[in-house]
Amino acid sequence: MLQLSKFPFKTLKSAPKVSDNRSTSLLLQWGYIRQAMAWAYEFLPIGQRVLSNIEQIIREEMDRAGYHEMLMTILTPREYWETTNRWEIPEYFKVPGWGNTEYRIAPTNEENVTPILWEFIQSYKDLPTCVYHIQKKFRNEKRAKSWLLRGREFIMKDAYSFHASIEDFDAFYADVKQVYMRVFERLGLWDDTVIADADGGAISDKNSHEFQTYLEVGEDIIVSDSSGYCYNLELACGVPDNKNIDETEQAMEYIDSTAEIVNMEKMTKYFDAPSWQMLKTVVYKLDTSWRFIAVAIRWDLDINEIKLRKFIAAQYDDTFTLANESDLENLGTVRGFISPLKESNLDIECFWDESLRTVKNFFGWANTVAKSTKNVNLSDLAISEFWDFSEPKQGFTSLNVEGEKLTFKKASEVGNIFHLGTKYSKPFGLSYLDENNKMQDQVEMWCYGIGVSRLMWVMAEYFMTEKWIGWPEDIAPASYYIIVMWEDNLQIARKIASDLESSWETVILDDRMGRKDGFGQKAGDCELWGVPNRIVISPKTLEQWGYELLKRGEESKIIKIS
Amino acid sequence: MLQLSKFPFKTLKSAPKVSDNRSTSLLLQWGYIRQAMAWAYEFLPIGQRVLSNIEQIIREEMDRAGYHEMLMTILTPREYWETTNRWEIPEYFKVPGWGNTEYRIAPTNEENVTPILWEFIQSYKDLPTCVYHIQKKFRNEKRAKSWLLRGREFIMKDAYSFHASIEDFDAFYADVKQVYMRVFERLGLWDDTVIADADGGAISDKNSHEFQTYLEVGEDIIVSDSSGYCYNLELACGVPDNKNIDETEQAMEYIDSTAEIVNMEKMTKYFDAPSWQMLKTVVYKLDTSWRFIAVAIRWDLDINEIKLRKFIAAQYDDTFTLANESDLENLGTVRGFISPLKESNLDIECFWDESLRTVKNFFGWANTVAKSTKNVNLSDLAISEFWDFSEPKQGFTSLNVEGEKLTFKKASEVGNIFHLGTKYSKPFGLSYLDENNKMQDQVEMWCYGIGVSRLMWVMAEYFMTEKWIGWPEDIAPASYYIIVMWEDNLQIARKIASDLESSWETVILDDRMGRKDGFGQKAGDCELWGVPNRIVISPKTLEQWGYELLKRGEESKIIKIS
Repeated sequence: MLQLSKFPFKTLKSAPKVSDNRSTSLLLQWGYIRQAMAWAYEFLPIGQRVLSNIEQIIREEMDRAGYHEMLMTILTPREYWETTNRWEIPEYFKVPGWGNTEYRIAPTNEENVTPILWEFIQSYKDLPTCVYHIQKKFRNEKRAKSWLLRGREFIMKDAYSFHASIEDFDAFYADVKQVYMRVFERLGLWDDTVIADADGGAISDKNSHEFQTYLEVGEDIIVSDSSGYCYNLELACGVPDNKNIDETEQAMEYIDSTAEIVNMEKMTKYFDAPSWQMLKTVVYKLDTSWRFIAVAIRWDLDINEIKLRKFIAAQYDDTFTLANESDLENLGTVRGFISPLKESNLDIECFWDESLRTVKNFFGWANTVAKSTKNVNLSDLAISEFWDFSEPKQGFTSLNVEGEKLTFKKASEVGNIFHLGTKYSKPFGLSYLDENNKMQDQVEMWCYGIGVSRLMWVMAEYFMTEKWIGWPEDIAPASYYIIVMWEDNLQIARKIASDLESSWETVILDDRMGRKDGFGQKAGDCELWGVPNRIVISPKTLEQWGYELLKRGEESKIIKIS
Repeated sequence: MLQLSKFPFKTLKSAPKVSDNRSTSLLLQWGYIRQAMAWAYEFLPIGQRVLSNIEQIIREEMDRAGYHEMLMTILTPREYWETTNRWEIPEYFKVPGWGNTEYRIAPTNEENVTPILWEFIQSYKDLPTCVYHIQKKFRNEKRAKSWLLRGREFIMKDAYSFHASIEDFDAFYADVKQVYMRVFERLGLWDDTVIADADGGAISDKNSHEFQTYLEVGEDIIVSDSSGYCYNLELACGVPDNKNIDETEQAMEYIDSTAEIVNMEKMTKYFDAPSWQMLKTVVYKLDTSWRFIAVAIRWDLDINEIKLRKFIAAQYDDTFTLANESDLENLGTVRGFISPLKESNLDIECFWDESLRTVKNFFGWANTVAKSTKNVNLSDLAISEFWDFSEPKQGFTSLNVEGEKLTFKKASEVGNIFHLGTKYSKPFGLSYLDENNKMQDQVEMWCYGIGVSRLMWVMAEYFMTEKWIGWPEDIAPASYYIIVMWEDNLQIARKIASDLESSWETVILDDRMGRKDGFGQKAGDCELWGVPNRIVISPKTLEQWGYELLKRGEESKIIKIS
């Protein structure tokens, strides 16, 4: 029983000025959290209760599914990270020990779990298996939001599963999805939580997913249509909207450049043309072959780096960096004035974003500071191939439902599933004996994250109203809040509180009796802390031989005291 | 329900060769833990269950007493540690961030809790208050035992209380002691756990205590008598036993030194004299005043550094280091041959351990390599004062019960209470308004530790038998272990398991059906994991329409299946 008369962590009159995010500010003001330093928060008793309630729901659902909880170390040996070639990652902390020894405080635990399972996985009968733990993680973030999101220190549930094949995962994944759905359902978030396909990084696109909760201040954008298509913006595809495609093509003209058209911003103003009618070209240098390629796109669209990375990997089996000034000079063009005009004869292979098909009579450059061009059309350009390089924008239509505009909504990631393939199992040498007693060394791994401290923030943001945070009943810092008016009634209140505790309820007893501790203050704190059931014991309720019970969303009623 | 058919963390045939401690080896062999690197352990699912059961008992008792659980950060800002002048402690890790930033991963949390409470303690009404958290701690240990004790990473419950005065603590301490006793009682350790007075370091001896559990492999020694006297050896006092005190004093003689009496080891042999008849003298240099003092003691006894530190602090308000070779030369003596003979006229103030009173006719040195002495008596020596400098030894008698020999027993520390005084509250500027609305800046702090991962080791060691670890019922990795013989009986077993789970029992279902998974293997694992209730479902029990239930320490019986 939390007795407020002995509780120093009072709600503050105003929020400490450390965050520009409303829910983080409220959590600070209402005594849930405190900032230890930028991007690292202490959880005060009220916040700790919310946190451990969230944690408990996750744990229950993971256990119900038969995943095994364990507890891995935070301090990890350097050798583990060298084995997977991940020691030199600047966002991961290195911790010097004695002499030349260095450790890492774990940002994630693939490097722990793989050598552990290496010792225990021996036969195909041991697969699939899934283990998890709930523990703090650390990232050496260069910059982060002063929000209670991922910071330098955060709490994660991370699970890892091991499979004999990718096919084996399919059945397993159906289970995991159920587990995640039940978690978000119990947290009250499911109605606004979607499963978005995620970038599986270098390993695989299939089977990597993000669970995203729609939030107005979300840091991600989810693109979807009514067919069930649902992607993070960084992976989404769509059909660019037609612009002036019905216009007649004009003959290309050169224009003498002046200070008024020295960049695209100025050019749109000068010609009073829309930004989509500007032609932008970016040149990349391939890292291994040192070849140069260019991508041309509408100026109002962005080249999606993930799409480009995959395209270059598929076409050239290579990676890339931006071409620099002297590269461009050698190629016969000028930074800021690149254009793949046929007439310029640049020695660069040029690719074209699909969006270029929808525009006629572009404005653009001419590989010299002195000239610009207008009425540029595809026939004027050295074209190699069209490809989808762009990040979709409001107005793009669905690839699946003809004519339907894509929906864009902000969201925050609450969970994810990533295919790790054999990225970790190979270097650590995982193997097992199959049904025919043959050694197999292809162990497929997946990982599954749920951000626990992040969820506390997402839920605060999601359940926040003008006046309080309406935590779901299982998450609130207590299930009952008892307001006692008059010292004489304390004994009755304590009796009611301990009766409730005997039936596994958690109770905050507001037994403060100071001059300033009126009913308003007490009822206010009950609201701020989002406690769903409020009991009032006062001379007035006792006149009716009872206490007042107010359940959230119901009418209050008097309960007789037996 | 933990289904062993899908559980890869099997018990091993033999222990990995990483520890020379039996219980640690057994925990490794039986799948409770795994070594991630020296002195940092991973808790595998079976071990994690034990750990979280221990944690839960501690939490329940702390909460019952009204202490507030919170969760502080692991990563802490350097400024906090500079405020208390503790940044430069080599056993505490420093973690480099971007640029010149450095953090610390917390070895203890005074530096978090004090600035947090600084924000919330405002009035005398907020005192006393006590907060705690359960979290991993980190120490950059140079060397540690390869036992599951304190290592580089360990789990602690650390609590901190804040008081308006030392007197205020007395009532509070009675509560805390009750809480600790209930914890150790519930863990089954209380009968062999004692409260020893501990060294309060520089701050205070009063009110600092260690909770020590007697263990044959314990790393501490507890000295006690039947009066209730109970001290860690490093602080214990006793009366040295009389040696040859009834002998007649002989006149002191000089002996020409030979290679055969060049050190005390050789001297005892040469004269066939007992080690207690050798006179040892150690010279110290005071750090501030640069004065020299000497302490003389029986050679078979050790000078207790803590006693010496307190003596010098009280007498000289100073600290000390050992005098070096050239110091000794300047003083007119020689390293290894020091003796405070009156005739030598050394310019050193000499103090005498009480033990010297019980011996006559010492052998000793003469401040020169050339000579030794025999039949040295107190009248031959330059005496300033007698004092108790020695660490008690078997044979010493109690100061409280006349004639009673002190008892020496090995023990392991499971909890402690330390008086922190204002060491942290002053630098962080804690203050509050007293009853008269006057600002007070004297906030007394105490801290209270319980080592959670250490307790798992202590309990393993304490409850270990030749064949298993007999965890108390609330601590065992499960309350029921169900052995199923024959695949046909799986369904009945699952039904019994889920009925047990509905009544809040935890169940391990041994549904392994492989060729090697006979009854012996299964019953063995049940024992190794210390599960207190074993159920067997086999054709034989089903012939009797039931299952066999074997409760630890009882006769097995058949329970009819309804």
